[in-house]
Amino acid sequence: MNIEGKNQVIEAIKNDKTINKIFVDKNFITRKDDVISLARKNQIKVEFLPKNILDKMSVTQHHQGYIAETVEFDYCSVEDILQNAKDKEHSPFVVLLDGIEDPHNLGAIIRTCECAGVDGIIIPKVRACQVNETVVRTSAGAISNMKIARVTNLKNAIDTLKDAGLWIYAAETGGELLYNQNLTGPIGVVVGSEGNGVKQSLKTYCDGIVTLPLYGSVNSLNASVATAVVIYEIVRQNLKK
Amino acid sequence: MNIEGKNQVIEAIKNDKTINKIFVDKNFITRKDDVISLARKNQIKVEFLPKNILDKMSVTQHHQGYIAETVEFDYCSVEDILQNAKDKEHSPFVVLLDGIEDPHNLGAIIRTCECAGVDGIIIPKVRACQVNETVVRTSAGAISNMKIARVTNLKNAIDTLKDAGLWIYAAETGGELLYNQNLTGPIGVVVGSEGNGVKQSLKTYCDGIVTLPLYGSVNSLNASVATAVVIYEIVRQNLKK
Repeated sequence: MNIEGKNQVIEAIKNDKTINKIFVDKNFITRKDDVISLARKNQIKVEFLPKNILDKMSVTQHHQGYIAETVEFDYCSVEDILQNAKDKEHSPFVVLLDGIEDPHNLGAIIRTCECAGVDGIIIPKVRACQVNETVVRTSAGAISNMKIARVTNLKNAIDTLKDAGLWIYAAETGGELLYNQNLTGPIGVVVGSEGNGVKQSLKTYCDGIVTLPLYGSVNSLNASVATAVVIYEIVRQNLKK
Repeated sequence: MNIEGKNQVIEAIKNDKTINKIFVDKNFITRKDDVISLARKNQIKVEFLPKNILDKMSVTQHHQGYIAETVEFDYCSVEDILQNAKDKEHSPFVVLLDGIEDPHNLGAIIRTCECAGVDGIIIPKVRACQVNETVVRTSAGAISNMKIARVTNLKNAIDTLKDAGLWIYAAETGGELLYNQNLTGPIGVVVGSEGNGVKQSLKTYCDGIVTLPLYGSVNSLNASVATAVVIYEIVRQNLKK
């Protein structure tokens, strides 16, 4: 779907619509432009095209020199993820992301989850990277096989998962050594943001905290790497069982 | 150290010197320029400066409008890595990278290795990403605590490691399930390139192949993610022991 017109495109960016690319009249290339600066700030690609090409692309004929091409990612519900596990006749395995901001990390996590047989990923609607073009590209195709739910409140999502019998663990420092915790059975893993980890209020809401051993002086793994190590420990324990 | 002059800078790029940034006379900004296009092709940052600033930076006074700022990364030898393990009084734990090409992957792997207590990383001199500015940045500081050896021939490096009593495993498809292999004791893990995995000739040279379970349809993990999962399985087995 295309969104046309200056204010419409600005609204789409501000409302976190998943925009693939914005086409702008190439006569605007040199001028100070609200849409272009907002697009750059949000890391959305801008392509400059001659006005007559925009005219041809336009459906409304009121593009004013701006057409945004949106990606239609089909988010699901938390219930859909649980149903997915049921359909596959295994214990639910869900990953919750508490504010991953880097689209490369989100894409990499989606790819890992798909490889490890995770049933679905839950992300918050605000203050977190949404599925955009970079995420789709980084996921290396995994996005089309992965159920992703987008929720207003991660706590409510955890409630739904707990009601369905899942045990929820936060992957964070200061908890039980990952390898000492029984991680078989229905499980949800909460992974924190790149800078701040899992929010305190959410951590206390989990059934436990699992921690990776760290020996160096850097003392923090990349978010997508840490997530992968935790996910594959769950895979290992399930295989062993 | 700075390298000055057009041909000198071109040679430095072609010879894989680790260049942080190239400063170019800003009068050259609009012209078709060999140095600039070569720099872009090799993802090296270019900064345009007024000629009088370049004159002040110059030592030789023959910069011709080009000064390359090189990074002095201090590669070590394979023996240094083995000595490092000896100093720490534990079994050597070495990671060999058979042609990682993406600097983000190399940086991420260095970060993971530092966190997991790996003694050193061995990379080939050719057809592989070397330590450059992107690698340094992606490693999040880990680079300064990690021994990295650069060798002409990975097979010879494997010989040295085998002579020192290490068991060498390739992380690849079609081998023993990672979790079923005893990975304690002196160990070297060979990880392949993003596109092609571990070279066939090198794979047969290893003591064994370890394989990650994959359930999805994408069927391949990102190189730095796969490396992290293997490295942390070794950490787990050593902790258990």
